[in-house]
Amino acid sequence: MMDLKIFDRMESEVRGYVRSFPVVFSQARGSVLIDESGKEYIDFFSGAGTLNYGHNNPILKEKLIDYLNTDGLVHGLDMATGAKRYFMETVERVLLKPRSWNYKLQFTGPTGTNAVEAALKLARQVKGRPNVISFTHGFHGVSGGSLAVTANAKFREAAGVALGNTTFMPYDGYLGPDVNTIAYLERMLDDPSSGMDRPAAVIVETVQGEGGVNVATRRWLKDLERLCHQYDMLLIIDDIQVGCGRTGSFFSFESAGIRPDIITLSKSLSGFGLPMSLVLMKPELDIWKPGAHSGTFRGNNLAFVTAAQALDSYWTNSAFSDEIRRKEELVRDWLENLVHSYPGVGLSVRGRGLIQGLATPADSDVANQIAHKAFEHGLVIETSGANDEVLKVLPALTISDEQLKKGLEIIERSTGEVLAAKGASAHVLKFGGKRR
Amino acid sequence: MMDLKIFDRMESEVRGYVRSFPVVFSQARGSVLIDESGKEYIDFFSGAGTLNYGHNNPILKEKLIDYLNTDGLVHGLDMATGAKRYFMETVERVLLKPRSWNYKLQFTGPTGTNAVEAALKLARQVKGRPNVISFTHGFHGVSGGSLAVTANAKFREAAGVALGNTTFMPYDGYLGPDVNTIAYLERMLDDPSSGMDRPAAVIVETVQGEGGVNVATRRWLKDLERLCHQYDMLLIIDDIQVGCGRTGSFFSFESAGIRPDIITLSKSLSGFGLPMSLVLMKPELDIWKPGAHSGTFRGNNLAFVTAAQALDSYWTNSAFSDEIRRKEELVRDWLENLVHSYPGVGLSVRGRGLIQGLATPADSDVANQIAHKAFEHGLVIETSGANDEVLKVLPALTISDEQLKKGLEIIERSTGEVLAAKGASAHVLKFGGKRR
Amino acid sequence: MMDLKIFDRMESEVRGYVRSFPVVFSQARGSVLIDESGKEYIDFFSGAGTLNYGHNNPILKEKLIDYLNTDGLVHGLDMATGAKRYFMETVERVLLKPRSWNYKLQFTGPTGTNAVEAALKLARQVKGRPNVISFTHGFHGVSGGSLAVTANAKFREAAGVALGNTTFMPYDGYLGPDVNTIAYLERMLDDPSSGMDRPAAVIVETVQGEGGVNVATRRWLKDLERLCHQYDMLLIIDDIQVGCGRTGSFFSFESAGIRPDIITLSKSLSGFGLPMSLVLMKPELDIWKPGAHSGTFRGNNLAFVTAAQALDSYWTNSAFSDEIRRKEELVRDWLENLVHSYPGVGLSVRGRGLIQGLATPADSDVANQIAHKAFEHGLVIETSGANDEVLKVLPALTISDEQLKKGLEIIERSTGEVLAAKGASAHVLKFGGKRR
Amino acid sequence: MMDLKIFDRMESEVRGYVRSFPVVFSQARGSVLIDESGKEYIDFFSGAGTLNYGHNNPILKEKLIDYLNTDGLVHGLDMATGAKRYFMETVERVLLKPRSWNYKLQFTGPTGTNAVEAALKLARQVKGRPNVISFTHGFHGVSGGSLAVTANAKFREAAGVALGNTTFMPYDGYLGPDVNTIAYLERMLDDPSSGMDRPAAVIVETVQGEGGVNVATRRWLKDLERLCHQYDMLLIIDDIQVGCGRTGSFFSFESAGIRPDIITLSKSLSGFGLPMSLVLMKPELDIWKPGAHSGTFRGNNLAFVTAAQALDSYWTNSAFSDEIRRKEELVRDWLENLVHSYPGVGLSVRGRGLIQGLATPADSDVANQIAHKAFEHGLVIETSGANDEVLKVLPALTISDEQLKKGLEIIERSTGEVLAAKGASAHVLKFGGKRR
Repeated sequence: MMDLKIFDRMESEVRGYVRSFPVVFSQARGSVLIDESGKEYIDFFSGAGTLNYGHNNPILKEKLIDYLNTDGLVHGLDMATGAKRYFMETVERVLLKPRSWNYKLQFTGPTGTNAVEAALKLARQVKGRPNVISFTHGFHGVSGGSLAVTANAKFREAAGVALGNTTFMPYDGYLGPDVNTIAYLERMLDDPSSGMDRPAAVIVETVQGEGGVNVATRRWLKDLERLCHQYDMLLIIDDIQVGCGRTGSFFSFESAGIRPDIITLSKSLSGFGLPMSLVLMKPELDIWKPGAHSGTFRGNNLAFVTAAQALDSYWTNSAFSDEIRRKEELVRDWLENLVHSYPGVGLSVRGRGLIQGLATPADSDVANQIAHKAFEHGLVIETSGANDEVLKVLPALTISDEQLKKGLEIIERSTGEVLAAKGASAHVLKFGGKRR
Repeated sequence: MMDLKIFDRMESEVRGYVRSFPVVFSQARGSVLIDESGKEYIDFFSGAGTLNYGHNNPILKEKLIDYLNTDGLVHGLDMATGAKRYFMETVERVLLKPRSWNYKLQFTGPTGTNAVEAALKLARQVKGRPNVISFTHGFHGVSGGSLAVTANAKFREAAGVALGNTTFMPYDGYLGPDVNTIAYLERMLDDPSSGMDRPAAVIVETVQGEGGVNVATRRWLKDLERLCHQYDMLLIIDDIQVGCGRTGSFFSFESAGIRPDIITLSKSLSGFGLPMSLVLMKPELDIWKPGAHSGTFRGNNLAFVTAAQALDSYWTNSAFSDEIRRKEELVRDWLENLVHSYPGVGLSVRGRGLIQGLATPADSDVANQIAHKAFEHGLVIETSGANDEVLKVLPALTISDEQLKKGLEIIERSTGEVLAAKGASAHVLKFGGKRR
Repeated sequence: MMDLKIFDRMESEVRGYVRSFPVVFSQARGSVLIDESGKEYIDFFSGAGTLNYGHNNPILKEKLIDYLNTDGLVHGLDMATGAKRYFMETVERVLLKPRSWNYKLQFTGPTGTNAVEAALKLARQVKGRPNVISFTHGFHGVSGGSLAVTANAKFREAAGVALGNTTFMPYDGYLGPDVNTIAYLERMLDDPSSGMDRPAAVIVETVQGEGGVNVATRRWLKDLERLCHQYDMLLIIDDIQVGCGRTGSFFSFESAGIRPDIITLSKSLSGFGLPMSLVLMKPELDIWKPGAHSGTFRGNNLAFVTAAQALDSYWTNSAFSDEIRRKEELVRDWLENLVHSYPGVGLSVRGRGLIQGLATPADSDVANQIAHKAFEHGLVIETSGANDEVLKVLPALTISDEQLKKGLEIIERSTGEVLAAKGASAHVLKFGGKRR
Repeated sequence: MMDLKIFDRMESEVRGYVRSFPVVFSQARGSVLIDESGKEYIDFFSGAGTLNYGHNNPILKEKLIDYLNTDGLVHGLDMATGAKRYFMETVERVLLKPRSWNYKLQFTGPTGTNAVEAALKLARQVKGRPNVISFTHGFHGVSGGSLAVTANAKFREAAGVALGNTTFMPYDGYLGPDVNTIAYLERMLDDPSSGMDRPAAVIVETVQGEGGVNVATRRWLKDLERLCHQYDMLLIIDDIQVGCGRTGSFFSFESAGIRPDIITLSKSLSGFGLPMSLVLMKPELDIWKPGAHSGTFRGNNLAFVTAAQALDSYWTNSAFSDEIRRKEELVRDWLENLVHSYPGVGLSVRGRGLIQGLATPADSDVANQIAHKAFEHGLVIETSGANDEVLKVLPALTISDEQLKKGLEIIERSTGEVLAAKGASAHVLKFGGKRR
């Protein structure tokens, strides 16, 4: 029972989460994970953003088993199937028509990085230029093309080759509140002797999930879109982690009022944790030649079934969005209260929707210690940021208030314990009490 | 019914197979596909090698539905789960111990290209050199790193960037029967002024599936392994398409008596068409740092469940291998008979196990026409090779003799029709009759 | 006479200066150029920094002709010759010993770009990392390796290949007076998720000649040296244009009190306009393998003869430096007076030693017009900067006061004429009168 | 006297020839080098092909000193001068018009590698594709762009970066006499799945000087030109080492009857050992933008003076060519006789015109030993080839018969001594006696 020995013996040293959560999980329902010893954990991790509708969401599961029972095609490459057709119809009906948007769909291999690879290839082909702008702390995947636009040295150094055709620019706020990083970018683009080769595209996350829950302001995104138009670059929004409702609306950029040229989706797209990815592109960009980008698993029909159902169940009206925003406030209040309780410690909160980060001092190990302690107390939560300095609160969007509060209480308690061990004390004895 | 309009309207021009097989498939069982009009097709395509055990294999499906019904974890990243542990135990018990092999396992993102990316990264890190040798007609995926070692211009030109760190060398037989391509490779490696930068690794398929069913002889593979040892290069066998039993043994290279340093598996690994990939590496190569290669869907637990069951059901003794070899002879005989029936046409047969190619003249469109005609007659089959000049016979390994013969008859009939339209005639009136 | 037709007919469109100065020059002495019609021009161009000691400097010419008359070796590759030995002894005696410096010398192909190529190769070999930091507006040559660290798009786009392994950072002052670009650089270096691959070296000009006479402050250079030590990067000072006395001291960085790891010299090194280049490296960096960087003309013995004589004649005491600084003040005063004479026009002065720029508004064509007008009036002068917006005052260091003033008068007059045509008027009627 | 200490102390470890010829040379006339002790050496090295007209050729020297005495411009960038105009007129009159050729001239930085860089850039711009075909054992320079098409690992490994955008193919004869390397190249070009990205150009030497005196047959060059036309690639002949008369005609490719799209010249172009380079391009290829490729020393007017005189003195009729061919036979006979004198040793002769190689077994050190011994006996000669296995006979084209024979006698004697020490003996006692 709970035997982890084979993981140590046979799995590569590259393994990661099994080190953070050293138990064997056996079951999962909604926002609860259960290990082989029967211990339950609240899930504030959500498969790194893949389980927005919770584990084994019963509505989706029913559809999935039904489909299996009728011997629907499981694996279809890009042959036409009824399941794929229905998914496309649902995207059109639920996502595009209500927004009066017009995008074409590319089904890539079912991982986010494959969608990013396709998006970058397309942009470079359309513009005939190799350079792409990416941002500090950006994460877009670890396959060759995506890795070149991913900022983190841990991933880059593993490539074993030099990664090029990318210019990294400072993200919103990277140089502190006084430096307008858009102005810097514009200077570089406008100056023929800046050293920046003319870019085909900009790829950006509206909230950097892996990068430390950094949030681009709506103004910054709007300005970025303007620069794209002005300097003939395509705007690629990588919505793999914070799309599919994570920030409140289905697409994370909607509140900024921008219209990306290309959008990448994956993670929570299937709604059930099944591998699936999608590239949306403005129709005039679709200069792909037949078969020029392929992928064995681009027709994961089980995922089409659950993805269509997720859209139908959650996104045909604004109720789910409203609910996410309500929970956002709950989380936000709780975390800000926590911050105020430890005034000298250097904590802060940032995020949008149900991705919220509790930032701790970069040179401390506080966030990791809180996550570790929280796990002991029955909460699965990870850290992010260049130095793992941000506790990343990422519950399922469907989490119950009770579970949400229970998870937040564990964070509160764990924070208190970690800081107490460091000599800090809460500002008030029973902080946060009035919040609930 | 059979409405394909939305595919034309909303799906990117990159779509491929839907153009070759312009129907909407609704169900699939074993080696039979059924479209929405109820028409049945024999499947000699097998999801490009992903469905070695047939569609909706009932043994695997049962396990899958059971797992879903118990709310087992679906999506696990690289957290430990019971399903993953059982899969690893099964690999050890069924694949490694009986061969006295010792490999460590890396679970990458669930697509073949992700496994290749990981393999290349690891090799380059281990040797500290960026160059890798790949071969003419090799196919290893279309994400940045894999694409650089993929030979086909159609895929390469879509990259929009220059692809480097690769030296392409002629595959076995590429320069005709009189040129030993291993000798050429050795000359290039041995000569400090050949222009070839010292390679970290060689990546090769033992049978090139996408490249036109080109078969490397066992001698050539053995010599290649020798060169790897001699020139300090790692040998990576990409067994994504022809591993998992396709050539008769579980690994395609077993009959050559070689021991690759790194092996990539995917496609039929899950056995059920579910996305899953795996890298096997000799333990001493496992210099990965924790988390240095990641991937959202590397823990597709549904795939672990079916993959383990597939190993248990088919690979614990030699019966399944024997059966594959028996069917190989059946296919081979049939195709060779077909070749002999059209002596002046330039047909030939090549392959190993249940991947067999009927090669037609490179400058004709005969193979495509046969595939097209066969589809009309109820057979799904694709072509491969640089000019789509090879009809690729790729039935499920579990296909019944009756279905296999029915498919071969359709090929025979379609070939006859295509050649007749071109003025060729069969050598004998009722060719192939005595074979059965 | 003055027939330029063959230049139009036979010389490539790539030709440049012949378009700016469309006459045929026949003779040159000191700071005077003479065309075939006998017209004389003051030279404020100095072969783009190659003729610091004037044209046909008689001291050097005498040595050169003597050497030719004794049949000394002209072309020696890197065989030992008496001329080369004497040059090395002179470098040691005149440049290194008085400064208590210890550098080894690499004789590369005789162009600046070849020295830069060697410096970059060496740095990358020493550190085992490909990335190098270069700066906005930096110019280091147009051969493959140097071009990658050169900022100007005109040159970069001509490469026909993507240029990589370089991160461009903002030079001192690039983001305006309020942004400390060293702080930004430090942030990028310190942050493991900035996207900047760890650099082997920084390459920088202390004054950017081609880039628009941008001057790095001594503080900035000192801070840059500190970052190099802190982040294990080599500091390469490219002193090709502003070394050899241009800024007052022999090396341009002396006043900043820094000690580069590698220094590149060329242009005025031979003193006579003969092709010659040199790399100075700290002895512990000299990990070159014999013959690993070669070059047919690396032993230009005629240049060794004049280079040694130039060091002997001008750099054995501080008199020449003092003289340069005196002339600097003269030029500076004159130009600043000119700026003050046109208060609303947006002119400014910048520079160090005898490289001084008269900056005009970036979006105007004023600088080019002044240069054009000046040429009509008998002054050869060029513009620099990303938009050719800076008039670059670059007289020979040996110019007489009379010639210097005559040239400055032509600038003054030409500026007046150009601005008058644009409707601007001098602040005072006879501006600058009291200066002389 | 003959003090070499400062070379060891101050010159980088990269130094090469000073190790092979450890004396200090002081004077040189024609084919004779004199060291500081007064010892004379016959020169069979010719500055690696730079001194085709001998050291301090008196005709050229006179012109040079005259020019200096009139204060002609020494350094002119690409401003027009009388000396440059006269050089261009001479090229047109002596080289182009008699051949009815039409090329435009680009004056690059004065080193061969700079000409190669310009040629590659131009080809890539014209075709809009980065890939270029180069050949095994090819040498084209060591700056970034040229280095990528240079085959030798010694140079490539010093780059510290991956070198790309090049496909190396086997040169004529590389795979032995039975393999037609043109057929292999054609196969790779014709096959869309060969892995070779479509090339913009082919760059090739007709005789590989550094690569070991490998000679491409006229048929092979003609076939290569055909492939260039067929596959839309530009043909670049790098005639830096074997142009300027080395093979008998001014351009080395004339006897093959081909017309390259681009030609690079340098080394012996100035005729006096002065740095100078030139790119010839078909007029329709001249898409250069003004100033897009620059270089401080591209206007070495001293070189223009001697280069024009060399053309005038040696190339206005066929006498000099005839003389080179006569000497070729003399050298060839002598070397073949030498080969026949040591039948079992594995010697052979190859070359064209006055570049002749005495090839020794690749795994021996015989060639180096002969060169070493020859130096003791008063002959300066170098080896070439991937393993320095070829003694490279490269006398001045103007060498007297007496000096030529004296040099050959030293080779003969040195070979005898080296082989005797190894136990081989001459076939006949006084071999080669009748030749003189």
